[in-house]
Amino acid sequence: MSETLALSSEDLAFLGPYLPPSSLDSPQHPDGPGAACKLPFTTLTYACSLDGRISLAPGTRTALSGPESKSLTHYLRLHHDAILIGVGTAIADNPGLNCRYPGATLEAQPRPVIVDPKARWGRHGEVVRLVGEGKGLEPWVLVGEGVEAVAGSGKLEGVEVLELKTTESQGARFAWREVFEMLAKRGVRNVMIEGGASVINDLLANERDIIDSVIVTVAPAWLGEGAVAASPAKSVAAMTDVKWRQFGADAVVCGRLPR
Amino acid sequence: MSETLALSSEDLAFLGPYLPPSSLDSPQHPDGPGAACKLPFTTLTYACSLDGRISLAPGTRTALSGPESKSLTHYLRLHHDAILIGVGTAIADNPGLNCRYPGATLEAQPRPVIVDPKARWGRHGEVVRLVGEGKGLEPWVLVGEGVEAVAGSGKLEGVEVLELKTTESQGARFAWREVFEMLAKRGVRNVMIEGGASVINDLLANERDIIDSVIVTVAPAWLGEGAVAASPAKSVAAMTDVKWRQFGADAVVCGRLPR
Repeated sequence: MSETLALSSEDLAFLGPYLPPSSLDSPQHPDGPGAACKLPFTTLTYACSLDGRISLAPGTRTALSGPESKSLTHYLRLHHDAILIGVGTAIADNPGLNCRYPGATLEAQPRPVIVDPKARWGRHGEVVRLVGEGKGLEPWVLVGEGVEAVAGSGKLEGVEVLELKTTESQGARFAWREVFEMLAKRGVRNVMIEGGASVINDLLANERDIIDSVIVTVAPAWLGEGAVAASPAKSVAAMTDVKWRQFGADAVVCGRLPR
Repeated sequence: MSETLALSSEDLAFLGPYLPPSSLDSPQHPDGPGAACKLPFTTLTYACSLDGRISLAPGTRTALSGPESKSLTHYLRLHHDAILIGVGTAIADNPGLNCRYPGATLEAQPRPVIVDPKARWGRHGEVVRLVGEGKGLEPWVLVGEGVEAVAGSGKLEGVEVLELKTTESQGARFAWREVFEMLAKRGVRNVMIEGGASVINDLLANERDIIDSVIVTVAPAWLGEGAVAASPAKSVAAMTDVKWRQFGADAVVCGRLPR
């Protein structure tokens, strides 16, 4: 595994306004007066090609961003309590989901959260291995209520299973607001959402008011029309508070979603 | 029509290395020793969303880039002898294809070139109107050999029809190299290729060695999965000599295609 380099002070100044509040209050999402329940601050982040693709094919891990933007990912992980991914990405990429930014301690590690309503994830691999090595926190896997007993995956060493009601209207999925409410109740102040495409596209199309910050890395390549697209079912107007900065050969754009 | 503003000196310094050579020699494509015929220098340029889409639907003109990146387009037009577009874009967008950069004279106008193998373009609209007003050069429309007589479009005031052999293998299309050779023979030293998606995707997938410079504007929006994608049939590795710069809320990336 290549070493993760520290970002420059200019890089940090660029990212600062888009990070979760440094306040220790929990949770941190700026709810309106009508909000029923507090939510964590959420950062939606991913890397794509110029044609908006995130991997060459479903279930394929694709090296897209360069070392500079990889450092960015680890810096962001340092600044979030939790990292959330969908089960498809957990299976396809087998990601470590820990923070390898220089100087990151075990206390500074983010909580891996795997959204897995049908209990498809095998509950082993890199993320579990890192727990054993003392390099990452025990992941939380969110499964549908009742699914766990049927799937019989059992509670494995190094994984905590959390049950949550699914909404049957869309084929045993969770309501996003309930996912984030559950995380808030467990003390998570802010969450970095790293993908994959179905999570990104669903949030962009249907849950923009839950997302506080967007940080996208664009690589100057084209993965092609057969590749997996980060492209929502409906169009989303231009972000506000937009800033771009070059990281190696890639660019990083930060902004807020239109409501 | 909104006024086109001048770019800053920093913007111009950013773009400089990606413009056609300032030499007056013709044509300007750096052919290898085995090249049969000289070609013009070509700049592939378009604007897309973060999900790599260039318009909301086929045949729809979509306002995507902001005033700063529009100024960029007109500055680029000032530095090219010709602008090439596909017939689909000519029909859908009804573009003027002239240069509205501050101080642009009639002599500085680029030659509009419309690639129209089946003679589908109606040969009227904005580009023809601008010729009449002395604000643009007479467009060249490239039609398939023999198609003109059948289509019977005739030679209209303000349009020059050029015939070129089609390759029947892909359904009456031109070989790109022959298109650019024809332009070179007519004194075109450099060409800006502005789209649409079928032209961009074909060149990226199949004719990378013809393209000398790539300049893409990325807007911080998502047009969505139903929109028209600038995404080639095959993947294209990362560009070289890559530079990014923010223009308004958009970013512009310049680079060279991998061979």
